Amino acid sequence: MQIGLIRVRTLEAVGATDRHALLIEGAFPGLLVHCHCIKDQVRGIYDDKSEALALPKVIELGRQLQSKVDAIIVSCAADVGVEELNKELQIPVIGAGRSAAGIACTLGDSVGVITITDNIPEAVRAGLGKHFLVWKRVKGVKSALDLESDVGYENTMNTAEELRAQGSDVIVLACTGFSTMAVAPKIAKGLGIPVVDPVLAAGSIAYTLMLNRKD
Amino acid sequence: MQIGLIRVRTLEAVGATDRHALLIEGAFPGLLVHCHCIKDQVRGIYDDKSEALALPKVIELGRQLQSKVDAIIVSCAADVGVEELNKELQIPVIGAGRSAAGIACTLGDSVGVITITDNIPEAVRAGLGKHFLVWKRVKGVKSALDLESDVGYENTMNTAEELRAQGSDVIVLACTGFSTMAVAPKIAKGLGIPVVDPVLAAGSIAYTLMLNRKD
Repeated sequence: MQIGLIRVRTLEAVGATDRHALLIEGAFPGLLVHCHCIKDQVRGIYDDKSEALALPKVIELGRQLQSKVDAIIVSCAADVGVEELNKELQIPVIGAGRSAAGIACTLGDSVGVITITDNIPEAVRAGLGKHFLVWKRVKGVKSALDLESDVGYENTMNTAEELRAQGSDVIVLACTGFSTMAVAPKIAKGLGIPVVDPVLAAGSIAYTLMLNRKD
Repeated sequence: MQIGLIRVRTLEAVGATDRHALLIEGAFPGLLVHCHCIKDQVRGIYDDKSEALALPKVIELGRQLQSKVDAIIVSCAADVGVEELNKELQIPVIGAGRSAAGIACTLGDSVGVITITDNIPEAVRAGLGKHFLVWKRVKGVKSALDLESDVGYENTMNTAEELRAQGSDVIVLACTGFSTMAVAPKIAKGLGIPVVDPVLAAGSIAYTLMLNRKD
């Protein structure tokens, strides 16, 4: 099954571009993932302005991908353009935010959410419903780029620990930059609670659709 | 990762016993699933009385499995004993009902639910929250056993079609007997909408836990 994956951050190096695709392909055999980045947003989405800027670009990419793939993943925890594309396109469009929330709801009753922004993405908040407990922003991180440093890693681990101390029985990583870091297993191991990686969550939902085709 | 799978229906033939295990192992590489049936319930769970009868048996099996596996799946859309076992045991206990609901919530906004009983399992209803649209019982089916016939198959397909006609954009199969039939891909193909198989949904959640271990 062919998946078009939309990155909401401009990447030049092919290795970096393909990272989310490799994560999904490695975990879910049979899914073939093709990455496409929106243009001119090297820092990705990190506030309302950058989200508004990305929206038409995501929609345009989705339209271009429609005839070439079986489903689209928008690799962004804010699910930018997902609702719009699902209304317009004839193929399923999967948001990483809603996927992570749906899976987290099955794993616990008090979900803690880690963000890189001053708010919790609405797709995650709405998806968690009554399972939502608390959210916290990683200190010293202004965009997904800042996660890729020792300080970004340490602060992410510390934030997760604070969320558990506040009663979280599951943690959702509400930025796909955390997937690039592959930090979910490290947190899960350190804290002993499940951690939901948004890119893998979206992959999991795409895989459900693929299993639907195994007739 | 070792998974203990509790069947809420007594099966003698090994092939039948292993069917849900094979479904999960075939879909999710790395999960090793060991099936265990509750005793003296050849017709499984099909009403309040049979559910009450099964509950202590599921709990006892869960206790026995605890030291032998990394996680437990209760292969029942009513999630019999899941809440109790999650409180008591030190390993995750995954219910097929809640798993199916969580995944369905990410795939659509108006979920239709097919049952074999005169009510919708509470684990599914609660898990769907505002995404729930409608539920319907398959005609002429009194227990999971009755699904395994031409009439059971036809009536299941017809029920799914009715749910779609009523506006369902996703269908949840709210009995793991539908998984035994492997009917999800057939409905998905026939109706062109995603169909969530409860056993595979539980497998998907177990797989999320396994990915958490890939450090």
